[in-house]
Amino acid sequence: MKFLPTFSDIEKAHRLISRYVHNTPVFTSSSVNDITGGKLFFKCENFQKVGAFKFRGACNAVFSLFSDGNKSGKGVATHSSGNHAAALSLAARLRGINAFIVMPVTAPEIKKKAVAGYGAKIIFCEPTLKSRESTLAEIVDDTGATEIHSSNDFFVIAGQGTAAKELIEETGELDVVMAPVGGGGLISGTALSVKAMMPGCRVIGAEPAGADDAYRSFHSGKLIPSENPETIADGLLTSLGSRTFAIITDKVDDIVTVSEEKIKEAMRMIWERMKIIAEPSAAVPLAAILEGKADVRDKRVGIILSGGNIDLNKLPF
Amino acid sequence: MKFLPTFSDIEKAHRLISRYVHNTPVFTSSSVNDITGGKLFFKCENFQKVGAFKFRGACNAVFSLFSDGNKSGKGVATHSSGNHAAALSLAARLRGINAFIVMPVTAPEIKKKAVAGYGAKIIFCEPTLKSRESTLAEIVDDTGATEIHSSNDFFVIAGQGTAAKELIEETGELDVVMAPVGGGGLISGTALSVKAMMPGCRVIGAEPAGADDAYRSFHSGKLIPSENPETIADGLLTSLGSRTFAIITDKVDDIVTVSEEKIKEAMRMIWERMKIIAEPSAAVPLAAILEGKADVRDKRVGIILSGGNIDLNKLPF
Repeated sequence: MKFLPTFSDIEKAHRLISRYVHNTPVFTSSSVNDITGGKLFFKCENFQKVGAFKFRGACNAVFSLFSDGNKSGKGVATHSSGNHAAALSLAARLRGINAFIVMPVTAPEIKKKAVAGYGAKIIFCEPTLKSRESTLAEIVDDTGATEIHSSNDFFVIAGQGTAAKELIEETGELDVVMAPVGGGGLISGTALSVKAMMPGCRVIGAEPAGADDAYRSFHSGKLIPSENPETIADGLLTSLGSRTFAIITDKVDDIVTVSEEKIKEAMRMIWERMKIIAEPSAAVPLAAILEGKADVRDKRVGIILSGGNIDLNKLPF
Repeated sequence: MKFLPTFSDIEKAHRLISRYVHNTPVFTSSSVNDITGGKLFFKCENFQKVGAFKFRGACNAVFSLFSDGNKSGKGVATHSSGNHAAALSLAARLRGINAFIVMPVTAPEIKKKAVAGYGAKIIFCEPTLKSRESTLAEIVDDTGATEIHSSNDFFVIAGQGTAAKELIEETGELDVVMAPVGGGGLISGTALSVKAMMPGCRVIGAEPAGADDAYRSFHSGKLIPSENPETIADGLLTSLGSRTFAIITDKVDDIVTVSEEKIKEAMRMIWERMKIIAEPSAAVPLAAILEGKADVRDKRVGIILSGGNIDLNKLPF
């Protein structure tokens, strides 16, 4: 087994999961183009199953690892309070295997309901990384389930890369492709697809300043995990891992950070101008453009709009 | 000049305006289908220019009345505090003629800005129908502009019918088509298209109980305007007119009313499940389904999702 996926693993992933995932639409907005000065193409993964790109990676992991007859009785396990939890639960249900999801007791009710609704078993833990990891280790020991990490996983990274592949297949040549950076699974898969399909295209990752481990790791050349990250972009709290850091170092052209204010402004702009629901994490690349961190003037720019799951009772406006 | 448009006027409108309007996408949602028991096809006019179907009718009126050389110097005028104001302003700008928009001083700032941004002249009046109408009459006298009513207008009705025409061209046979009812322009145009293209398909208009003039007019056979209508669905406060009442009486199968609570619930469902922004008026047909006012079980149901313009600072949740 290779340590890092390549574009051929993304092509393989795409063949495997395309019957399960939506080939989501690509949206443009003339008013957002007027404001930014670029021609922006938004790959709308908010319309993906479970409302986020995470379903691609989870689906690829489940269907790659659990081909017919392969220890399928033991299932998969992960710790996640967010989109990966729902994504892995649905993928496991589609494959007919068990999913064990370790969630902090403080996770939003709506996420707990979604995971339970997909038939996964929820194991609650304290809301610390330590408790999440130790609880998951116990579950894996007890059940024999295979851990599927939310980002630093070979098949997850390959699955996430299918979003950029579809985007480029639809738009043709692009000058820049941007994606948000949390654990780095999305930007890694995106960079692998972009550099294979359009070697001259720049890849830029956008990260909240309050959770800037990828920014610091990328620019220092050392993997530096976040300590106590804080941001409204709740999908981007995770730090890079060994695989995602290696791919980002090799394939990504720049990582930039954005303020909380610009994330809110960008999210509101997407809602108001494009009439679609983007979660804060999904607004981070546009926030980087609005903050002048990425030069898009007169350029064709692909953006992975990563998801649309947000609690309407807790809006920042 | 005929008093009432027919389907051939809608076909003509479509040829005239298709270069200016978006052929908006049709969305489906498996979770909304699971909840309602039907197979629902949402024609997403929230993605239309100016964020609402109103642009179709305004565009058809402007380009039909002001063919080359036809009194184009005098422009168009209307009174509207909402989507029709923005729609007529943009249509006039595209045609290169003046637009005079009478707006109540109390209109939302965002609407005033949009209209001004399209280069229309705004004339403020008191927030009563009487003041709106008398101010508009003065403006028409002074300028020689042609009044384009927001709903009870031959070309406006024909233009609105192009949304259902596109919907049916995309989905094929449907059992039911639903649209919200305010002044009746949308449901009239919808009914003309549906009954011409699929004579066996039912057409149902959905109206807030707090602005139920169409319900009362339809079921009594007499045109009964609303007095002091009140609803969160601010696009549906207008009453039917002579043309829309005549078409509705002839072509629509039923008008049903819905509660404010169900409108909010339906709007929230569209936001949460479909990840798109629908304004309250646009949620009224789904509200009718949720309230049991329209039987959609195992049926293929087209819904005109009329618009997505809403003040994010004044959400009902």
